Amino acid sequence: MSAEIDPFHAIAISRLAHRLRVEGRSVIHMEFGQPSTGAPTAAIAEAHRILDTDGMGYWESPPLKARIAAHYQEAYGLAVDPERVILTCGASPAFVMALSCLFAPGARVALARPGYVAYRNTLKALHLVPVELACGEAERFQVTAEAIERLEPAPDGLIVASPANPTGTIIPPEELKAIAAVCRRRNIALISDEIYHGLSYTLPADSMLQHAPEALIINSFSKYFSMAGWRLGWLVVPEALIPAARARMGALFLTPPSLAQHAGLVAFDCRDELDGHVESYRRNRALLLDALPALGLRRIAPPDGAFYIYADVSHLTQDSLGFCEQLLVETGVATAPGIDFDPVAGHGFMRFSFAVSTDRVEDAITRIRPWFLDRAQRVRGEAPGG
Amino acid sequence: MSAEIDPFHAIAISRLAHRLRVEGRSVIHMEFGQPSTGAPTAAIAEAHRILDTDGMGYWESPPLKARIAAHYQEAYGLAVDPERVILTCGASPAFVMALSCLFAPGARVALARPGYVAYRNTLKALHLVPVELACGEAERFQVTAEAIERLEPAPDGLIVASPANPTGTIIPPEELKAIAAVCRRRNIALISDEIYHGLSYTLPADSMLQHAPEALIINSFSKYFSMAGWRLGWLVVPEALIPAARARMGALFLTPPSLAQHAGLVAFDCRDELDGHVESYRRNRALLLDALPALGLRRIAPPDGAFYIYADVSHLTQDSLGFCEQLLVETGVATAPGIDFDPVAGHGFMRFSFAVSTDRVEDAITRIRPWFLDRAQRVRGEAPGG
Repeated sequence: MSAEIDPFHAIAISRLAHRLRVEGRSVIHMEFGQPSTGAPTAAIAEAHRILDTDGMGYWESPPLKARIAAHYQEAYGLAVDPERVILTCGASPAFVMALSCLFAPGARVALARPGYVAYRNTLKALHLVPVELACGEAERFQVTAEAIERLEPAPDGLIVASPANPTGTIIPPEELKAIAAVCRRRNIALISDEIYHGLSYTLPADSMLQHAPEALIINSFSKYFSMAGWRLGWLVVPEALIPAARARMGALFLTPPSLAQHAGLVAFDCRDELDGHVESYRRNRALLLDALPALGLRRIAPPDGAFYIYADVSHLTQDSLGFCEQLLVETGVATAPGIDFDPVAGHGFMRFSFAVSTDRVEDAITRIRPWFLDRAQRVRGEAPGG
Repeated sequence: MSAEIDPFHAIAISRLAHRLRVEGRSVIHMEFGQPSTGAPTAAIAEAHRILDTDGMGYWESPPLKARIAAHYQEAYGLAVDPERVILTCGASPAFVMALSCLFAPGARVALARPGYVAYRNTLKALHLVPVELACGEAERFQVTAEAIERLEPAPDGLIVASPANPTGTIIPPEELKAIAAVCRRRNIALISDEIYHGLSYTLPADSMLQHAPEALIINSFSKYFSMAGWRLGWLVVPEALIPAARARMGALFLTPPSLAQHAGLVAFDCRDELDGHVESYRRNRALLLDALPALGLRRIAPPDGAFYIYADVSHLTQDSLGFCEQLLVETGVATAPGIDFDPVAGHGFMRFSFAVSTDRVEDAITRIRPWFLDRAQRVRGEAPGG
């Protein structure tokens, strides 16, 4: 039998949202983690130029590999050989590559719960065993060195994500260092998903590579670089894994999209435009953090980075999917249900993505305010003795 | 331990070719299976339009799924529900999806040897067991119903490729039908790689779907549509596998490139331009079939379709990689070594890809003629008693 894996429920929400739009409804898309902005202007200009001058065959861009390697020097002070950078069709295939390079079926890989739905599903699809570590408010919804230390038997691997999806929490440098040390001592292979790097509001996010030179690092052009649909990402592997990673890239994916690689190289020089988006996310975050508690959403994971608010709505529902569907149908605001990220506690959580324009965030707050207040009132009315 | 998989040696040849070009040498690229033409003109125009008007987020194109479904009606007279079409980032990920939907580690999957290197490597990377069927001249280098019938125990799956890589041979309709019948009777899951459909010179290629409605069909925009670097392909699954395939797409790959989906839809209406490429391949094929026997290359797989000539050079070498490297260095003509496609008999074979312009094929023939004649003479000189 092939592996049973769960659907990503936010996709069902998104389909419903599109149906509502076709019916003429106004919808605000806060269900997916993707910038509503497009690629940087200069990257688009480069794409136009390449379309007219290049045949666009199978291609892996040497200058882009070199540029990404240089980025590790600039952003983290790390020397990385460009040959260690494997270009991929986004972070998802990079994750498949990382798991395939490291593990055989049956291997146990630890990860935080809540976490990005595809970690769990990809592990299952590859017949690896997810070892979910329940992470609550006390751990800022993140794995800790202590939790990894306690895990018996030691897992074969650990997935770390900082800033995290769905919470946005960042693991501080000392904790990353402690996690790296435990993994080294217990011989646990480390995969660090750094797709939200560049999107930090409180403390900066270290790369796991600063603390664990042997870690596999995943990143992409879909978030900070605002190029989600271009499908371009990368994987940094330790030198010993270069042949295994290259062979897998050739077999499983062949090459990343040619045009995206040309445009991605230019995107590295569009910091002003991209940092402008980050400033807009910062404003959106502040607006939501200001507005949500008044709607009764007081238990919110600290959104250090990324562009998410993960909110506890367990006082209002224990059916987050139905809750998000109803919110969408009645207000036109699409969000993601907590069960996508946490099959256990997620029934009482929801995620807002604030990678949209600030006026849309303001509009969303205006729309959901009466809905949440009404919902709270009804729940109070139904409560025993209420 | 993760799986050990072989490199694709044509990549090493291609790297050497690029090094030679940097040194100022003129190189003719016949090592990879990719058209030297770009995307159709109207598809490029659409890409320009989309670049200027669309944010290009994560996206799966409903009109493209419908267009591909309609293509099965037009080309093969088959009704296919668009929901059965899963859009992928090329044929390679479609193949990963197909295998992941059907099999668990340890499953045995039969395939022809010689065959496309990535079949074997992807099977190994997913911890499936390749069951290679040695297919020689007598079987036109293709699997037969008889060979599948004889196989004990029955494999869990079978990969069929028609037209095939590296040989270009097409499986005739009656044989496809017989293969489908054996697989149905023996409960063998069928995957049909139809990436070279549209490129036929002798007999038309049936879709396996005409004979086995339960088969999984792989195709892409990389060959006939001349859009290799755009990374767009598709998988047709039977209705029962739609949820499994969708869940895997979301987890392992997320979405295909947005721009490629827009351009690919337009490419379906560019038949005249694309059929012009096919005419050019037809000329190239005739030129090579005319010239090669005079160079001593008389044992050639019948190139019914695709854009390859797979030639027996065992009278000249038993080291096809070294042979192709030397040919490249000494003539500037890059080709692929047989060992990429057949780890057993491939030491004495090589593959020419003729998806280049006709004048390049003519140039290549002029360059390699003295080299092959000289090589044959030297081999005769070295032969015992020669």
